[in-house]
Parts: sequence; structure tokens; C-alpha cells
Amino acid sequence: MSMSQWSVVDVEMMSLAISLAEKGRYTTRPNPNVGCVIAVNDHIIGQGYHIKAGGPHAEIHALQDVQTKQNQTKLSSATAYVTLEPCSHYGRTPPCALALIEAGVKRVVIAEVDANPQVAGNGIRLLKEAGIQVDIGLLTEQAKLLNLGFTKKMTTGLPRVTIKLAASIDGKTALSNGVSKWITGPDARADVQKLRARHCALVTGVETVLADDPSLNVRYEQLGSLKNSVSAADLQQPLRVILDSRARLTSEFKLFDIPSPILLVSCVDYAAEVREKFNNHVSCITIAANEDGRVDLHALFTYLGKQCNSVLIESGASLAGSVLDAKLADELYLYQAMKILGSHGRNLLQLNDYQSMEQIPELQLVDSRRIGADQRMIFSL
Amino acid sequence: MSMSQWSVVDVEMMSLAISLAEKGRYTTRPNPNVGCVIAVNDHIIGQGYHIKAGGPHAEIHALQDVQTKQNQTKLSSATAYVTLEPCSHYGRTPPCALALIEAGVKRVVIAEVDANPQVAGNGIRLLKEAGIQVDIGLLTEQAKLLNLGFTKKMTTGLPRVTIKLAASIDGKTALSNGVSKWITGPDARADVQKLRARHCALVTGVETVLADDPSLNVRYEQLGSLKNSVSAADLQQPLRVILDSRARLTSEFKLFDIPSPILLVSCVDYAAEVREKFNNHVSCITIAANEDGRVDLHALFTYLGKQCNSVLIESGASLAGSVLDAKLADELYLYQAMKILGSHGRNLLQLNDYQSMEQIPELQLVDSRRIGADQRMIFSL
Repeated sequence: MSMSQWSVVDVEMMSLAISLAEKGRYTTRPNPNVGCVIAVNDHIIGQGYHIKAGGPHAEIHALQDVQTKQNQTKLSSATAYVTLEPCSHYGRTPPCALALIEAGVKRVVIAEVDANPQVAGNGIRLLKEAGIQVDIGLLTEQAKLLNLGFTKKMTTGLPRVTIKLAASIDGKTALSNGVSKWITGPDARADVQKLRARHCALVTGVETVLADDPSLNVRYEQLGSLKNSVSAADLQQPLRVILDSRARLTSEFKLFDIPSPILLVSCVDYAAEVREKFNNHVSCITIAANEDGRVDLHALFTYLGKQCNSVLIESGASLAGSVLDAKLADELYLYQAMKILGSHGRNLLQLNDYQSMEQIPELQLVDSRRIGADQRMIFSL
Repeated sequence: MSMSQWSVVDVEMMSLAISLAEKGRYTTRPNPNVGCVIAVNDHIIGQGYHIKAGGPHAEIHALQDVQTKQNQTKLSSATAYVTLEPCSHYGRTPPCALALIEAGVKRVVIAEVDANPQVAGNGIRLLKEAGIQVDIGLLTEQAKLLNLGFTKKMTTGLPRVTIKLAASIDGKTALSNGVSKWITGPDARADVQKLRARHCALVTGVETVLADDPSLNVRYEQLGSLKNSVSAADLQQPLRVILDSRARLTSEFKLFDIPSPILLVSCVDYAAEVREKFNNHVSCITIAANEDGRVDLHALFTYLGKQCNSVLIESGASLAGSVLDAKLADELYLYQAMKILGSHGRNLLQLNDYQSMEQIPELQLVDSRRIGADQRMIFSL
């Protein structure tokens, strides 16, 4: 169906379904964000979104809403607008395609076909076999933005990788003596909290832990207006992943005091040592070293891709640069403070010593806006 | 008079006078930009602006326009709106205050009192003594923006100093091998041409000449839409000032092939050598060295302040940093390319090795916008 064949009501309802899906972006991991609106013409009889992995999917929430509002009799003439193809397999919940069939809706409109090989096309097939009219492809591009990480993981086995950087306008992260508090302002730091909260894992290097002793958690009280829509209980703490190729970390650092999970990644086997020295929210894996003796990043992301849709790199110049040089990054967030620190300051990014402009990483600016006194730029790679 | 006492017509007429004044910003140097509107109530009977030093002032242009339109009989009930206090002294042209008195206008509204000590308050006094109603202070802040350089020169003896920089988002100006063409795109480079065209002088260091062999002129054909309002003949080429403390330059560089004036600044006396080796559009001065053996910047700007309202620093990291460290800069233009070059690249700014965030130069972001593919940020200091 081409865009022009959709009715104004179709577009309105799917837009609403997308907005609903977005409400789950801090809580559904590792599941995708999905929204569902059930309507008879322009009259909404039920709506819902996927809130939490293990809980009901969007379609089920919407059907429950239909029931709550005693609208069941209208289902036979209703259209269900779903941002992602309804699932067809028995996971932790029964298949949503069957639920829609049993509910007896007349038509299902789908924005995006599911990238999950267990679903892809099967949900659509089930619906069609039950005689339901299925229309696919409404607001697909917008719907895809809901689940970039989920889709990448499903199709490539790798998580979506975002690098977060903060620097002065001359690209420095600290003075020569290491002083860096605070280059960016409180609004940018609060924005980083939200960025963290949207990711399955945060990745940093041992050098950052040794130098800055960060907590690397999401601080609920700093989430601002987000607190109105996400409860402290529903908020998911990202897995904290620390690259420590030579197993130098000890338990005295702040991040170990916070009980959310930590994964230590080393090139040596120190599982026994970790069990002995750290609390049981700390686990470890061994990943082969690359030729520089550091954790092989492709192997790391392949491992993280088994559980994580998205990882956020919050590190020093070296790790962030290696991810860029290895072409493993999908996205770059740069928080730029309106300050100049000068050439003695510490560099933002250690890249290969490129000899021509054709070799440097290619960036596409996706968004640029003020965040308090700072500028936030988002690039895709 | 407080703002609320001005009529809507007053504000409209002065806004128009300011717009007229802006038309002269590429051609009036070293004179200020001034616009004049003569109106009877909301009916404009004449208008004009100062186009070129040595030519008629804005008031004279406006009075000539009144005559051309055969509106002289209306002058006795007219108000003259002038962005800058009318002059009271005989320079290259007779005093405008007298011209307004002779024309017989009823009222004069002035946005800004002239900072030129030969004028300041005298023009107003003359008008009042002639029985003309004089109202001062309408849109003063906007009018002041027309002549920041002129005012600074008149009040401090120093020109307004703007630093122009261009870098990647990680603050690098070139790869390690010096490759820098092109970091910024054609739109940013065209914008720099306009920036140059607005300045009385461009200042750079010998290192930049040796490394890049720039022409440092304004290329009329690159001025885009500006060509519609400024003719090639009226365009003023900025004085090109090259800091060459040890007199290392020879005449083989490109900038010497272009006949607009060049000032070589050295810490040694090489006047005889310059006369012998260079064409006569090249002059030189000797300025004392600072403790680093370089041209003393305060002495340089004091010298340039005798003839220049504004200077634009287009230099490498060292000279630009020295101007910032010496707190001699008023404004910073940063053209930021959406690229990353990495830590091996060349640094944008060589500042003092500051040890605390309280010591770094303070910047205020005044404007930020896309220029083609690049971001242009303007800071005041």
C-alpha cells in the first residue's frame, strides 16, 4: 500500500500507537517498544503499549482496555493499529496474533514487520489465514526508530552501539591536570541520565574507573519530567560493563557499592578471583585480546548482542576512538560545552593517525540542540 | 525618554534607519554606519545612509532624497530619525547638524550619542540651540550593534578584535600531516569572505603564510547575494597585517601578488629591506617584542587602533591563543565541521596551561546556526 492509500484516520491512529510505544522506551528491554490502538473508524475503543518484558504485549493491553471500557461488541468492526507485527510464538506470553483473531477484529494495520526470525511474517500469515484484512507499511520509517537496537540485534547479532562524548568547543575533556568537573552543565548531565536509562548496557574502560571512580548508574532523582511517566520500580538499570583486560580492578571503587549488575571483561580468566573478591552482582567473562592486548571489541559486542539491544560507550578517548576506528559505532552523542580549554587540555578522541580526509570516520548530523548551556549533537555513523 | 514614550511611528522609522545603516557595513570604513529617515508623521519624505568615507553622511543623503522627491516644503513639520548623533565638526564634509538646522526640520530623534570625542554631545547641542526638538535614546541597543568597532576605537583607542577559527567537532584543524583542505564546506568559506569584507584589517602570523600561502583577500565573486548590494568598486579590501617578528618573509608568497595594502609587523627594523624587496603596496612597522620574542599584541592593536575599527585574526593556534590569553579578543567566530579528526590532528587553540576552570577564557554564545554543512558559533568575550 502506498502512503497515499492510507486514510487520514489510519495515519492518526498509527501516530498515536507510535506515541504509546515510546512510553515504554525506558522499561521494555530487551523487548521491543510496541504500541497498539483499536478503533472503529475514528472512535478509539481501546489502546495500550508494551510496558515491561514478561508482561502483556501492546495488543493485549489494548484488548484489556477494550474490555475495561465494555467495548467488546464493537470489535467485529474494529481495526487494530500495531506498530510492530503481532507475535506468533509462545514466549513468556501467548501469541498476540491469536489474541487479535480470538477478539474478532476486522482489520489489522501494521507499521513494521518484526525482525525477530521467530515472528517475521508468521504473525501476518496467521491473521490473514483467519480472514482478517492485514495492511502493512503505514508510518514504517517512524516505527523503525522505536526499535533500532532490537532490530540490529535480531538481524546482525550485534547491539546498537552509541558513543557518548562531552568536550569543550576545542575538543578537550579536561585541563592538563585532569580537572574536568564540570565541563558540561546540570541539564546536559541530566540528559545523560536519560540516555543511560534507554540503554541495555553501559560500557567503559578500567582507566575511566581508576581515574574518575564513577557510579555508572541511572539516578532516578535526576530523571526530571521522566519521573512522571516511569516509576522508580519500573526503571531498568543498564548492565555496567567494564573492560579490564589485565584484571586490575579491586572492589574498592564506587560502582561496586551499587547492587545493579556489573560485567567485568578481561583477556585473562579470573572468574575464581572475581567470585572471591566481589559481591555476587559482579560477574566476569574472558574475551580474547586483540593485537594490542586489549579486549577484542567485535567479540565483546557479539557477546553483548546475545542479551543487549543497545550499548552506550561512556569512556575515555582511547576506547571511544577504538570503537570508531573499528567502525562498530552506530551513533554518537556529543555534549559540547561553550568553553575553550586550549591545546594543553586532554583530547576527546584517540583515532588512528589518518593521512587523508577520505579515511576519517563519516558522520551524519541527525539532531543539534541546546541542552541548558551546552549544545547536544547527535550523529549517525 | 523611556521606551514606552516613543510612538509606534517613531519605532518604525528608527528601525528603518537602522536597516539603511546596515547597508553600508561593507563600504563605510573607517567611518561609522549611519542611517537617516526623514518623515512627516508616518509619511517618509526622504531617506539615506552613509555609503562611503569621504562621501556624504546619512543625513545629507536623506536631505538630497527629500529634494529629489520635491518634498522640501514638508521639512518644517518633519522629524529626522538618525541612528547616530549628527556630526558637528568640519571633516571631509560640512557638519550634518548644520545641514539639518538649515533644512528646517522640526524634530530630530537620535538612537545613539556619538562616541567620537569631536562630536559627542556637540551635535545635539547645536540642534537644540537652533530650537529643534531633540529626542535621544530610541532603539539605542540595536543602533550600537551597527558600530561596535567604531565605538571601541573611539573610546579605548583599540580596534574591535574578532578571532575566526575553523575546526572539526573534536577541535582539530588538520590531520597530523597538515592536510586540512577542506575541513569546512563552500558555504562556510563564502561566509568567511563576508566576515573578512566587514573588517578593516586581517591579522595573521608568518607561520600561516609559510604553511598555507594564503591570499588573505576578499574575493568579490564569492560574496554571493552581497554582490546585489555592494559593487566591486565600492568593496573595501581589508589591510592585510602579517606578524613576522624575525622578518622571515620573502616576496614569493601569493598574498604579495595581490595589490591591496599589506602591513608587515616585525620586532626588528627592516624598513629599508622591505622597500627594496617588496612592491609599494607593502609597508612595515617595528613593534617591540614581548618576553617570548614575539610581537607585543597590545602594542600592535594600539597601533592598528589609529586606523582600524575592527580587526579579524585568521591565524594558527598560537597567535589566536595568545590574543585570547591576553584578553584582547572581543568576539570569536567558530566554524565547526561535522567531522572528527582524532587526537593526532592539529589543535585549534594554544592557550596557557590553565590549572583550574576559573582561569579559562569566558565565552558567551551570541549566535549559533548552520552554514551549509557546518555550524557557525559566535561568542562574545
